[in-house]
Amino acid sequence: MPEPLKTVIIGGVAAGPKTASKVIRLMADAEVTIVEKGTLLSYAGCGLPYYVSGVVKEQKELLSTPVGVVRDPVFFRKVKNVHVMNQTEALEIDRAAKRIRVQALTKGNESWLDYDKLVLATGGTPVVPPIPNVALGGIFKLHGVHDAEGIREVLSQGKAQDVVIVGGGLIGVETTEALVHAGCRVTIVEMLPQLLNILDWEMARLVEKHMESHGVKVLTDCKVLSFQGDGHVNAVVTTQGTIPADMVVLAVGIRPNVKLAKDAGLEIGSTGAIKVNSHMRTSDPDIYAVGDCVESIDLITGQPCFVPLGSTANKHGRVAAINICGGEDTFPGVLGSTVCKVFDYCVARTGLTETAARKLGYEVAMAMVPGPDRAHYMPNAASLLLKLVVDSKSRRLLGAQAVGPGTGDKRIDVAAMAILAGMTVDQLAHVDLCYAPPYAPAMDNIITAANVARNKLDGTMIGVPPQEVHQMMEANEDFILLDLRSPAEYEEVQLPGSTLIPLGTLRERLGELPKDKEIVAFCQVSLRGYEGALILKAAQFEKVRVMDGGIAMWPYEKVIRKRVVPTPHRHQRARQNLDPKGSDSHPAR
Amino acid sequence: MPEPLKTVIIGGVAAGPKTASKVIRLMADAEVTIVEKGTLLSYAGCGLPYYVSGVVKEQKELLSTPVGVVRDPVFFRKVKNVHVMNQTEALEIDRAAKRIRVQALTKGNESWLDYDKLVLATGGTPVVPPIPNVALGGIFKLHGVHDAEGIREVLSQGKAQDVVIVGGGLIGVETTEALVHAGCRVTIVEMLPQLLNILDWEMARLVEKHMESHGVKVLTDCKVLSFQGDGHVNAVVTTQGTIPADMVVLAVGIRPNVKLAKDAGLEIGSTGAIKVNSHMRTSDPDIYAVGDCVESIDLITGQPCFVPLGSTANKHGRVAAINICGGEDTFPGVLGSTVCKVFDYCVARTGLTETAARKLGYEVAMAMVPGPDRAHYMPNAASLLLKLVVDSKSRRLLGAQAVGPGTGDKRIDVAAMAILAGMTVDQLAHVDLCYAPPYAPAMDNIITAANVARNKLDGTMIGVPPQEVHQMMEANEDFILLDLRSPAEYEEVQLPGSTLIPLGTLRERLGELPKDKEIVAFCQVSLRGYEGALILKAAQFEKVRVMDGGIAMWPYEKVIRKRVVPTPHRHQRARQNLDPKGSDSHPAR
Repeated sequence: MPEPLKTVIIGGVAAGPKTASKVIRLMADAEVTIVEKGTLLSYAGCGLPYYVSGVVKEQKELLSTPVGVVRDPVFFRKVKNVHVMNQTEALEIDRAAKRIRVQALTKGNESWLDYDKLVLATGGTPVVPPIPNVALGGIFKLHGVHDAEGIREVLSQGKAQDVVIVGGGLIGVETTEALVHAGCRVTIVEMLPQLLNILDWEMARLVEKHMESHGVKVLTDCKVLSFQGDGHVNAVVTTQGTIPADMVVLAVGIRPNVKLAKDAGLEIGSTGAIKVNSHMRTSDPDIYAVGDCVESIDLITGQPCFVPLGSTANKHGRVAAINICGGEDTFPGVLGSTVCKVFDYCVARTGLTETAARKLGYEVAMAMVPGPDRAHYMPNAASLLLKLVVDSKSRRLLGAQAVGPGTGDKRIDVAAMAILAGMTVDQLAHVDLCYAPPYAPAMDNIITAANVARNKLDGTMIGVPPQEVHQMMEANEDFILLDLRSPAEYEEVQLPGSTLIPLGTLRERLGELPKDKEIVAFCQVSLRGYEGALILKAAQFEKVRVMDGGIAMWPYEKVIRKRVVPTPHRHQRARQNLDPKGSDSHPAR
Repeated sequence: MPEPLKTVIIGGVAAGPKTASKVIRLMADAEVTIVEKGTLLSYAGCGLPYYVSGVVKEQKELLSTPVGVVRDPVFFRKVKNVHVMNQTEALEIDRAAKRIRVQALTKGNESWLDYDKLVLATGGTPVVPPIPNVALGGIFKLHGVHDAEGIREVLSQGKAQDVVIVGGGLIGVETTEALVHAGCRVTIVEMLPQLLNILDWEMARLVEKHMESHGVKVLTDCKVLSFQGDGHVNAVVTTQGTIPADMVVLAVGIRPNVKLAKDAGLEIGSTGAIKVNSHMRTSDPDIYAVGDCVESIDLITGQPCFVPLGSTANKHGRVAAINICGGEDTFPGVLGSTVCKVFDYCVARTGLTETAARKLGYEVAMAMVPGPDRAHYMPNAASLLLKLVVDSKSRRLLGAQAVGPGTGDKRIDVAAMAILAGMTVDQLAHVDLCYAPPYAPAMDNIITAANVARNKLDGTMIGVPPQEVHQMMEANEDFILLDLRSPAEYEEVQLPGSTLIPLGTLRERLGELPKDKEIVAFCQVSLRGYEGALILKAAQFEKVRVMDGGIAMWPYEKVIRKRVVPTPHRHQRARQNLDPKGSDSHPAR
């Protein structure tokens, strides 16, 4: 009988335990050992913002299986037949002898552990920026359970009134909500010109506006210069002034833990993470690497990228285990599909942003399409602001972004599938998605968006992005900003300097418009804008364009004339803000 | 200047107005006329169950654009430049002279209308089964707004205590909820062995059980013999006895309206609906047909099918309009993607059921995978019972079904995309979907399901469907039904005749199990069942299978020992019923 396969896994949070479980399932007699530096195993790191906010009540829940069993070393041994050495640090890989040197952190003694196959699941470490006084009390990261405990303790003592979050990426944004719910005044400080740079600027602006409506102060293009305080932080000095702060959360990014791999001479990729092939194998055929410490291949560009996500980590683990056990499985790569909750907005994206696509040299068509996420007459209809990025040449979908209270995650998952399948927007416009009024409009949001993209590609709609309209405004250019909504809608909210001609009266009032002047037509969602532009075009108006996304996706200030009821019923809000397919929705089965 | 293109459209509910709008957009000077028999135009037929229930409060909402403009003939003329002749019936198509004969229903006078292009959007008619006394008062269909008004009136008068719904298809099921909410005692009578025959039997059973938990009586394999009453219905005589009824709703299906087309000699398909090519053109090159009166091509089988849905109707309209205007667009066909709301369950499906796939000669592998629809520790996690149908030879996904309070529509839309893309379950297991705890588990439900299917295809998991286990029970076969859950879970609910050995103790207690006897292992979701089976297999147990779907998807009665709190918090309910990936969930980013 052959010796059992000795598999040693360094790292016990996500990808490590997943690999261990799958190895044992495929090879019941394998000897599997997990070496983990911390005390805790297999915890749900992405649940931490919800533990901070109290949505998740007990730490235990993040550590438990869905039936409530805590995943401790006894659980791993009895249920999984996996040996766990926690509070144990791996110090060195001896590739020649196929062994690793470990140290028991409580006792201090070192020993060697032999392996046939080694798996590095060493994860990532939050970046601590080299800002003066970053070590002051009250300055937290949010990475492990202990960080979350620290923040919770401060919050429970009511000691944090003013909180500054440094970094407006995913973790910063998710943490903001938790802190606002705890009653803190929160300021986000972001170095870049926008939050969430996984989105295009105007989509990120819609998120910022939503955060601001919840009392969050968002400072973009803003750099932290230093922290002030005597032992404990009391202010953050930035390029936009000094902000009082009882607590600071650093959320500037994650760096892959590659020291062990690097010291052992394993290849590190251009992103700084461990390089693996599609089998999750490192440059040493007996060493695999999985989870947040490795880089992935971007499925659109073919280039390496560093996108540490729990969903990817779990897939890595399964692929590595299958290959370790002599099977064959490959991990193809990622699209950067991401979702996050920002108060009552769902923010989701996949593939390339417009900015990224243009940088890569694509000729891009884009569609910005707001609409309710289900039949507009259903009380739970909620607004969904969707953007598609399309390669003009191949007509293929390159990317998609969704912002709003509607179910954007669903549409972005569909978009991810379309990108993976290499679908054109023409194909996407005809896919057979589920329809019933409580779940979707008769023309699903993504199908409408694909059709808008087709209209633009086919030249029947000429769009102008809101940024360009804003520039034209700022430059005092001589053009007509033609609002085709109803007088009642116009009374409520309008764009500065716009001219109102309701669509139903446009044919009679053509004489009011000069034929030689540039016209930008719009409405709530730019469908009436589109129809108006077609009427003008047929009447020999020469320079007519349609503003992408309409008022619903205008990323600047609007002129609010009549305030709507402060906290309108969600249904009402969806209707007032949105006009999904304008005057043209026939959602009958 | 050429004459404007005369387009006449017969039918003004969904596909007709959509075609009209798109024709005008593409060709501003076209003359477009809609001929509609009824008074109302462009109403949301699929919203009717929600109008009956009062979720949609006013009839007007079903007739309005999202900004609240009623789509009446004035709207169509002023906004759309479309001429509408409502209360006008098309009586005859004179193909040779390219004209139709119409009758104004109020005045009775007839006239001829010339066309260059004719579009048939004649819709469907609810089937009225030839049952004795079907014309009694209190017997309704639910097709048009007037039907809904009639039902609402009876409900508002409190005259309907006992309601019988004849037909357990989509409309019957959607209407049931409305009537139960109105306080009626509802019985559904269905001729077939199950409700919703767009699902496999065991999935439909899970829906039936849910309806029963809301007090609905479901009679399957039951035929209506006659209605009783004196002027007004008071009972329904069925093969399973006589049921008192103050009101009856007939929901036995829709028949396409093809008389005009048939009389004009246009080709009718094998399904009885109008045959069109992918351009939505009938056998006459100047006549198009769209919406519920035409048949579609099933994208998996390539065979014609009749699936009247509003989502499809809208796509038809756009394709027909583009081709009418000299462009080129094709409608590829359908997968039968469908969703419906059944109380707090979302029921969705796409592609082939297992039953249909086997009938078509496929060698089928299937996966039944229950789990929470987001990270299990999130309070809004809800259970999702998923089934995949896979072609064993090509490993391609053929179909998917979802039942439960979780967001099944999202996963079925993803499945539809996977089928359209021709993806194997191996590819599906690696797709990059959005993950964050409020929206999905780290391994999305559909990815876990794809992996379960792969385990079965690869022979590492041998499944046995619940129906077969039930047969073995009924036949008193000598086998061990091995429950691998915890004693606490076992105390709460169990399967009849099962033996409890918690997974964590299995390795120590192997001696209690006979090696030669057949063993069926299971747990809440059959992940611990699967792990247990692997342990047994490694210990040389020969005949071990895993019950598909676990207790969570058991379609028969369970032994309830300890009742849970009557109306548990949704969070608790999701956890108690589900154990998504059993002991093996590592949802960290």
